[in-house]
Amino acid sequence: MSFEPIDPGYEERVRASFARQPFMAHIGAQLSEVGPGFCEIRVPYAPELTQQHDFIHGGVVGTIADDAGGYAAYTLMPADSTVLTVEYKLNLLAPAKGDVVIARANVIRPGRTLTVCTAEVTAVIGDSSNLCATALMTIMRLDGKPDAAV
Amino acid sequence: MSFEPIDPGYEERVRASFARQPFMAHIGAQLSEVGPGFCEIRVPYAPELTQQHDFIHGGVVGTIADDAGGYAAYTLMPADSTVLTVEYKLNLLAPAKGDVVIARANVIRPGRTLTVCTAEVTAVIGDSSNLCATALMTIMRLDGKPDAAV
Amino acid sequence: MSFEPIDPGYEERVRASFARQPFMAHIGAQLSEVGPGFCEIRVPYAPELTQQHDFIHGGVVGTIADDAGGYAAYTLMPADSTVLTVEYKLNLLAPAKGDVVIARANVIRPGRTLTVCTAEVTAVIGDSSNLCATALMTIMRLDGKPDAAV
Amino acid sequence: MSFEPIDPGYEERVRASFARQPFMAHIGAQLSEVGPGFCEIRVPYAPELTQQHDFIHGGVVGTIADDAGGYAAYTLMPADSTVLTVEYKLNLLAPAKGDVVIARANVIRPGRTLTVCTAEVTAVIGDSSNLCATALMTIMRLDGKPDAAV
Repeated sequence: MSFEPIDPGYEERVRASFARQPFMAHIGAQLSEVGPGFCEIRVPYAPELTQQHDFIHGGVVGTIADDAGGYAAYTLMPADSTVLTVEYKLNLLAPAKGDVVIARANVIRPGRTLTVCTAEVTAVIGDSSNLCATALMTIMRLDGKPDAAV
Repeated sequence: MSFEPIDPGYEERVRASFARQPFMAHIGAQLSEVGPGFCEIRVPYAPELTQQHDFIHGGVVGTIADDAGGYAAYTLMPADSTVLTVEYKLNLLAPAKGDVVIARANVIRPGRTLTVCTAEVTAVIGDSSNLCATALMTIMRLDGKPDAAV
Repeated sequence: MSFEPIDPGYEERVRASFARQPFMAHIGAQLSEVGPGFCEIRVPYAPELTQQHDFIHGGVVGTIADDAGGYAAYTLMPADSTVLTVEYKLNLLAPAKGDVVIARANVIRPGRTLTVCTAEVTAVIGDSSNLCATALMTIMRLDGKPDAAV
Repeated sequence: MSFEPIDPGYEERVRASFARQPFMAHIGAQLSEVGPGFCEIRVPYAPELTQQHDFIHGGVVGTIADDAGGYAAYTLMPADSTVLTVEYKLNLLAPAKGDVVIARANVIRPGRTLTVCTAEVTAVIGDSSNLCATALMTIMRLDGKPDAAV
């Protein structure tokens, strides 16, 4: 699907919002790509991000799936809005065993109030990549609430 | 509902597994209570755990809901098993604005292979507590796979 | 939780809406109870409602969980609104083996736009009742759109 | 993704199981296509399948999404197994306004015990088709339990 953003400054707006989330820095997340109705977030492996089997923790996987979905939706929203996740469902398909995990989210149905997105999280080792989670989520637009704290 | 654990050493087993998850330490999570079919995890507010409005990030909320659910299920599993989250759904009900967020998970249907749990996450400020998320999740038991990395 | 409906005529409104759904009659569903933030729907066993093992089909279980959730939310909405399900998740816990299946839905977080509900579906045989499904759902209020077709 | 069924007789097996579900006949559902890891189910509009605005009821949409997902998974299972839905999540994206609704389900991760599928439901009027729901679901294989009632 291809989307036409209402706000031509959508990419800077999304990047600025991402940069205001200290938790993204705390897990080493990078906003690697932003497009209309699309967002990609990467997290390189780090020992402090793991679970008991030295794979990247499902909490990191869920966090970036959720964040990527919210920002994919946010690309299509107006400049003076903010965004919140209403709910998401995540199926964990394989351990996140890799040098980096990458969440790619796409809008599947934009709406004035609610936007529905999917996200896939893959774990990459060298040249090979493995789908480790898939998510389906509902995102809400809030108008007249600036995304930046005042 | 009241449950009878098959493994009398379930609490130590759950606590040992939790202690082996570096990501729990990285977000400052504490395993505050473990009972048969029940688990509670707390995370005190810290600036590095926040999103753009200085509330605790939804990723932290999702992480502890998922972890608490997995460990609630794990209390009822045998000693030589490990546990993994198949999937969870999380509804975010209010911003996690508080001095501490607390996830409480309960088993609602234990099973030989699959266990279904719910989790609620509340944010606490002083004496007042606010429900900020609710989750419904499916957890799988893996036999003959030790929880500790070899 | 206890709720104060804005519309004192909420019960008649919900019952009238239910009566306008031909599919409810087609599956033999009865709106057995309506209260503030609460709704109960029953479906007696009938051979045409079953799956391959002669249990009531999961589709019937999902249908009444969804409908009960929508109407639980609708009890708290204003007179000139209508209601739609944004999404729901259903865990099927046991086969719906019984003389009747009963969905009971409760609002857990009402909101101006979105309301979050849970629903439980039990199958009853004689005096014994078995939880066969649990759901977590998001319901949306639409203002100025009459529930009755014009 | 392309899949190799273990049971060459998978299509007859799925069709026979579908034919044993009286509820499918009760809603006028047709099993229109079966392939490896894929299943399509159609339901033509009928007045008794509608909700209060004369659209096809969300319960019908959920029922065929769930059934299509289960059978998509079942195509990849062995001959002497049966299948059950563990859970599904459904986002309703638009009213099911059409001459026919079509659920198309695909396996995204097959497994020995659990299989994860997605399903999309579209409503078709003449030449135009509208996505009205999307689902993400978990299906379980049960070995040594015949699908046919004994």
